[in-house]
Amino acid sequence: MSQQRTPIRSQMAWSTPDRIEVQGYDLCKDLLGHINLGDMAFLELMGRPPDARESVVFNAILVTLVEHGLTPMAITSRLTHMGAPESLQGAVAAGLLGLGSKFAGTAEGAARLLGATLEANPEADIDTLADDVVRQARERRQHLPGLGHNLHKPVDPRAERLFDIAAEQGFSSRPVALMRSLSVVASRVYGRQLPVNATGAIGALCCELGMDWRLARGIAVMGRAVGLVGHLAEEMRTPIAAEIWLRADEEAHEHYVPQGGDDADS
Amino acid sequence: MSQQRTPIRSQMAWSTPDRIEVQGYDLCKDLLGHINLGDMAFLELMGRPPDARESVVFNAILVTLVEHGLTPMAITSRLTHMGAPESLQGAVAAGLLGLGSKFAGTAEGAARLLGATLEANPEADIDTLADDVVRQARERRQHLPGLGHNLHKPVDPRAERLFDIAAEQGFSSRPVALMRSLSVVASRVYGRQLPVNATGAIGALCCELGMDWRLARGIAVMGRAVGLVGHLAEEMRTPIAAEIWLRADEEAHEHYVPQGGDDADS
Amino acid sequence: MSQQRTPIRSQMAWSTPDRIEVQGYDLCKDLLGHINLGDMAFLELMGRPPDARESVVFNAILVTLVEHGLTPMAITSRLTHMGAPESLQGAVAAGLLGLGSKFAGTAEGAARLLGATLEANPEADIDTLADDVVRQARERRQHLPGLGHNLHKPVDPRAERLFDIAAEQGFSSRPVALMRSLSVVASRVYGRQLPVNATGAIGALCCELGMDWRLARGIAVMGRAVGLVGHLAEEMRTPIAAEIWLRADEEAHEHYVPQGGDDADS
Amino acid sequence: MSQQRTPIRSQMAWSTPDRIEVQGYDLCKDLLGHINLGDMAFLELMGRPPDARESVVFNAILVTLVEHGLTPMAITSRLTHMGAPESLQGAVAAGLLGLGSKFAGTAEGAARLLGATLEANPEADIDTLADDVVRQARERRQHLPGLGHNLHKPVDPRAERLFDIAAEQGFSSRPVALMRSLSVVASRVYGRQLPVNATGAIGALCCELGMDWRLARGIAVMGRAVGLVGHLAEEMRTPIAAEIWLRADEEAHEHYVPQGGDDADS
Repeated sequence: MSQQRTPIRSQMAWSTPDRIEVQGYDLCKDLLGHINLGDMAFLELMGRPPDARESVVFNAILVTLVEHGLTPMAITSRLTHMGAPESLQGAVAAGLLGLGSKFAGTAEGAARLLGATLEANPEADIDTLADDVVRQARERRQHLPGLGHNLHKPVDPRAERLFDIAAEQGFSSRPVALMRSLSVVASRVYGRQLPVNATGAIGALCCELGMDWRLARGIAVMGRAVGLVGHLAEEMRTPIAAEIWLRADEEAHEHYVPQGGDDADS
Repeated sequence: MSQQRTPIRSQMAWSTPDRIEVQGYDLCKDLLGHINLGDMAFLELMGRPPDARESVVFNAILVTLVEHGLTPMAITSRLTHMGAPESLQGAVAAGLLGLGSKFAGTAEGAARLLGATLEANPEADIDTLADDVVRQARERRQHLPGLGHNLHKPVDPRAERLFDIAAEQGFSSRPVALMRSLSVVASRVYGRQLPVNATGAIGALCCELGMDWRLARGIAVMGRAVGLVGHLAEEMRTPIAAEIWLRADEEAHEHYVPQGGDDADS
Repeated sequence: MSQQRTPIRSQMAWSTPDRIEVQGYDLCKDLLGHINLGDMAFLELMGRPPDARESVVFNAILVTLVEHGLTPMAITSRLTHMGAPESLQGAVAAGLLGLGSKFAGTAEGAARLLGATLEANPEADIDTLADDVVRQARERRQHLPGLGHNLHKPVDPRAERLFDIAAEQGFSSRPVALMRSLSVVASRVYGRQLPVNATGAIGALCCELGMDWRLARGIAVMGRAVGLVGHLAEEMRTPIAAEIWLRADEEAHEHYVPQGGDDADS
Repeated sequence: MSQQRTPIRSQMAWSTPDRIEVQGYDLCKDLLGHINLGDMAFLELMGRPPDARESVVFNAILVTLVEHGLTPMAITSRLTHMGAPESLQGAVAAGLLGLGSKFAGTAEGAARLLGATLEANPEADIDTLADDVVRQARERRQHLPGLGHNLHKPVDPRAERLFDIAAEQGFSSRPVALMRSLSVVASRVYGRQLPVNATGAIGALCCELGMDWRLARGIAVMGRAVGLVGHLAEEMRTPIAAEIWLRADEEAHEHYVPQGGDDADS
């Protein structure tokens, strides 16, 4: 091995026979019994526990992400559990794999857009920035993340509630203001109601908490993993996966156009 | 479709334009701002939020499961992220897939063993039960789940701390007593230190909380999903996956015994 | 590092600037252009290419496993693709995760049962062995793998065809005979038609080819990975995942029993 | 349900008690015993079996993709198998999840680039097109997919062999010519050897076969699924995953900087 090797380093955890350090804290003395799962998630991402105000906001973000009913991801987890009930981890993993650009991309996209815009223009007027962002998106025919909802109109109640919680805890500065302004401007420019939706609010609050936009999808994964286990618990009690499968298969069978001319003749 | 169809039902969540119900609660009014991620996880599994005592114990279980350092699962998530950095959900999913019988099986196995033993013998003396369980396991050459640890000797500090937290909150009845008694009996019978380990304590506390043993693995998945996102956040800051890969590949290359005799000659 | 380290070894592949060895063969000269994907799969598992007879039988096994229509796995891959179209590998992975005990277990189970029975009784009469196996399974209330099919009655045409192919190629010795005899005995003992099904035939042919029963699931994974990519190709042309999801979600919404006391009052 | 429903359709497969149709062919009569796994993969993607020339080229592409030695994906599958040996499908799925933009993106990118360029300029001179493509990539600081290799210099022997096979079978038209010309132009413009690599050749041959560039990643998934099962077969015989893990964990432990001030003092 002539090549210079870089060392393998990780500061996530460390153990001796009688002590376990996690993120620099004594797991048994400092964390267990003192910290909830949401705060632990913050510690894992930020390297320090949240203060009381951050804890409220971050847990609210996570709780919003847990449960959205019978989503494609939830159906996926249930179908996978039907084939491999011995591997609950596989059923959750299968569900998480649907958390891609179509579903998770918007919180990520909103966090990225807000972060980049505000970082590049630290002094600029918020409404002027919103005008610029909407105009550019329109010119480039780009989708504006975090705005609009099929069902929740004229406002998405989750976004309103998340913004209220953030304001109560003192997190209502430029990212929230820009997200709100984008909604106003975009609604006017596109001529239809484009309220801030839940993912837009989450993107803005990630910025308020100082989190890297690349972690927004990770936060969604954390919340949704909890929700998918919940769906598997319901599937164990009252299974529906087989029914979803059988109906689809049956209908596909009915609509199928057989090809086998030769055999049909014989 | 001549077949009788069963209905597709789910009570996980439900929405109208201005209201979102999750597990029968108003998401915005009752949950957001009031409940942390660990309590939300309890709600997803049990259909009701935990009381204050359950919240402490359940969050302690979850927090124990989040972070174990550079495990095979953490390395897996990091290697996967290297190949598909655009799919953080895939990297977490890959890591979770290692949460199988070797790692997650023990909490599950402990919860199952304790639950089945106590349900079948609701009145029996705990130490007598422990004697029976250890004797049977020995006769059948079966592994006793939740006992022993390579590093944490003579006690696993996490198990002790979890039992203390549970006792403080009033959860220290027959499952905890049986788990402790199994440790005493097994250590005597096998002639070596077999302390209750973290997974054994978690299994016992799942029983104390009245949770189905089949959900023990789900609880591990919830906790570990949080930890794997944490590892990916560290990997983004200080990557080590490429180095782990290159060293293994390089060494395998050195030890490789070329087969191509014919070509070597020609 | 005081601990004795074991070396990292792998004989799968090896490269120099102008030569790539795979399984001991020169990839460019010996394999590319000379070997098909099924033969390459055999080489990966057995460390040598198949002869002409093995190639026919092994490819027939693999081809049987590729496509079973709109299975839970296929629906899973399609739903996952809807959420993460940028990660085709994630959609295939999600589908494969359903290849667990319920679906893949039977080929594995048949291969294991046949292998263990014949190895333990190398000289025994086949019909006597079949009588013993069925009797024991009945006494222990164990499921006999590889027998019976909901749709394909009185015979599974795939099993018959696979056995014919194997016989034509000279692979019709004790594993096939035992699998066939199990069908006869089980049909008589249980009083209903229990033909050898496709997975039973595959299990028997894996034994004929001398493959470890633990690889039977791997062979299923290989075949099904091909089929799931096929389903994603159809999904790109004529999407159905959204419709399957929306119908399930809509029906669950209709059947949902709202819990919210306050709203119910108003 | 007031909404208009779209029908669930799939033409992948269809069964009656005595007949199974796959892609419009009688599985037992037309496919089993007559078609190898690579041809079956072609049939799944293209809706028709390959002719003899296409079969040689497509199988060569697939075989190239199967085995690349101890890649991050192979290590991932092995680590996952260590934790969940009962779920071989999970270990393969975990490995496949690394087949993202960094590894699979290049064949996909090459197929896309060649296809789009040639479709937009059906009559243009190949070398002129290559000049334009390289110039534009340089101006936009975009990576040119399918060119260059760390180890295989001055040529990638797999690319040469794939091009030779294609030429022998009559597939050496504009996509191959453009890929070769890109290599010549880019090597001159960037002033270093940039041979067509294996993924560049595969991208070009996908175009020659008339395949949608979005399926290039699917072809990689098919091939690699076979290879990952191969690695798991070797891992069962001669395990290395535990050693890879332990070394990384041990080194991280050595380099860890404890944070715990209180304990450090005591």
